[in-house]
Amino acid sequence: MNSPDTRLFGAIEAGGTKFVCAVGDAVGQLRAEHRFATTEPRTTLAEAAAFLREGSGDFGPLAAIGVAAFGPIELDRRSAGYGCILRTPKPGWSGTNMLAPFAEQFSCPIGFDTDVNAAASAEHRWGAARGADPIVYVTVGTGIGGGVLVNGEPLHGLMHPEIGHIYPRRHAYDADFAGVCPFHGDCLEGLAGGPAIVARSGALLDELAHGHPQWDIEADYLAQLCAQLVLTVSPRRIVLGGGVMSQVRLLPMIRDRMRHWLRGYVDRPELSTRIDEYVVAPGLGSRSGVLGALSLAVQAAAPHSHAPGRLHPGT
Amino acid sequence: MNSPDTRLFGAIEAGGTKFVCAVGDAVGQLRAEHRFATTEPRTTLAEAAAFLREGSGDFGPLAAIGVAAFGPIELDRRSAGYGCILRTPKPGWSGTNMLAPFAEQFSCPIGFDTDVNAAASAEHRWGAARGADPIVYVTVGTGIGGGVLVNGEPLHGLMHPEIGHIYPRRHAYDADFAGVCPFHGDCLEGLAGGPAIVARSGALLDELAHGHPQWDIEADYLAQLCAQLVLTVSPRRIVLGGGVMSQVRLLPMIRDRMRHWLRGYVDRPELSTRIDEYVVAPGLGSRSGVLGALSLAVQAAAPHSHAPGRLHPGT
Repeated sequence: MNSPDTRLFGAIEAGGTKFVCAVGDAVGQLRAEHRFATTEPRTTLAEAAAFLREGSGDFGPLAAIGVAAFGPIELDRRSAGYGCILRTPKPGWSGTNMLAPFAEQFSCPIGFDTDVNAAASAEHRWGAARGADPIVYVTVGTGIGGGVLVNGEPLHGLMHPEIGHIYPRRHAYDADFAGVCPFHGDCLEGLAGGPAIVARSGALLDELAHGHPQWDIEADYLAQLCAQLVLTVSPRRIVLGGGVMSQVRLLPMIRDRMRHWLRGYVDRPELSTRIDEYVVAPGLGSRSGVLGALSLAVQAAAPHSHAPGRLHPGT
Repeated sequence: MNSPDTRLFGAIEAGGTKFVCAVGDAVGQLRAEHRFATTEPRTTLAEAAAFLREGSGDFGPLAAIGVAAFGPIELDRRSAGYGCILRTPKPGWSGTNMLAPFAEQFSCPIGFDTDVNAAASAEHRWGAARGADPIVYVTVGTGIGGGVLVNGEPLHGLMHPEIGHIYPRRHAYDADFAGVCPFHGDCLEGLAGGPAIVARSGALLDELAHGHPQWDIEADYLAQLCAQLVLTVSPRRIVLGGGVMSQVRLLPMIRDRMRHWLRGYVDRPELSTRIDEYVVAPGLGSRSGVLGALSLAVQAAAPHSHAPGRLHPGT
């Protein structure tokens, strides 16, 4: 369009530890931001809604709101539980309707998705995955999660991908570690999430010497994830974010091991000479959460949009 | 629509061993069929085109043609090699343009995709995956391949999924078998494809007693595939076809082991009480190949269709 897009959107990054709320525009610029600790559901959501009300008072009506939530969440609009947190270990939050407090106070469209799908959407709209389709965004921190976008839209399906729980093959240096996932023991998250690193090596990755085997183990497991994603989702780009990936040494190690696992079978330059542009660091860094929520809002407001969590007829 | 759809379509199942060509309608009924052995490209494709010319002479003009080809194939319409077979061990076929002989003689739209994506499309349109989205169709035979549909359209991405080459964890009874995949050794295809069964056990699956460990090994590896698919693609249905799956004892064994690997983590009835409707046998049996090609044709002709391999702008 020729005239600038002056619409404003509400963004709610609903994390298990903190909420980040913002008002921003369609190009990803934030005009106001408010952070606070996640406490019990009613108070927390009321504070978020109050911030958006004030924000819209300052700036004019919001065109849409995006809510990016910790999971698992119900994304099936045909379900009576749409918009709710599913069974979660976080006290008090199981069954919480994350959208009702906003729907009661605002008449605009509300986009809703997982935090990782939202981050994927933001990286696709404004970050390191612009122009690529399909894409996968992976976050490696306390947990390992991933968002998949196909045609720019988050993949939901049966629930939503839970790629952190695939089973990698055990690294040769790591035969005896039991893994820490309460569900699966030695799934990827149980072997390569932050708590697994600490449980295995007694320290965070950045506290370990470069020659410590933990680096090879971590890179190998994440490389197996990337290889499996190539073979199942066939993405055109993989973005690796999260606290563990802030160790920049990891990324080239992962690319090397990914080639090892694929062994040239998928014969594409993206997986050989151009792999540095294929498996990449996030473009939005720690802002991917709140920008993810903003991206969900932009998508929910777009004309003819297949807004995440809103327009998936028949799915 | 109220009036019956009388359009006719050409279907070419281009297999490495045989071609099956047909003329059929939009509800999956075939009016004429012609099978012949795959020889060298020029003669083979000429025979297929000649059959469709005669068929359209008998029945009137074709609304579209669908070509379902053995792979790997180039599906990127932006590539100069669109429509071609990529590097293949099949003598003479590398680089063959599978669409040119038809485009020269017919002016209708031509759909093009892998044989497994086409079979997925047919199972979604007429078979065991009707009404489900996304879905995965897996064939377990000499090779192991899979087609993924999202919003009813085959997923291509970087190339196309190659789910037969993921690495399952080794079964406890199978620690010593090296695997037979020429690329990966002990990837899924190397451990669970037909030739792997013969190499490990000296016989085909149906020749082995029910208590033979090969049955457990096979079910476990295919269950690991299904579990990984749930975690990465999040399908609403998985269809398991191909020669190995014609052993009907396998399917319930696979469902059991799949629950073992997922351990209740994805909390959906489809994965517990309703798993018999979630991991299913094909509805179209051995006709999924030629009906797959027909489905590609129907999709290529559909108004406003995102025809497989035709309209993926920006991908």
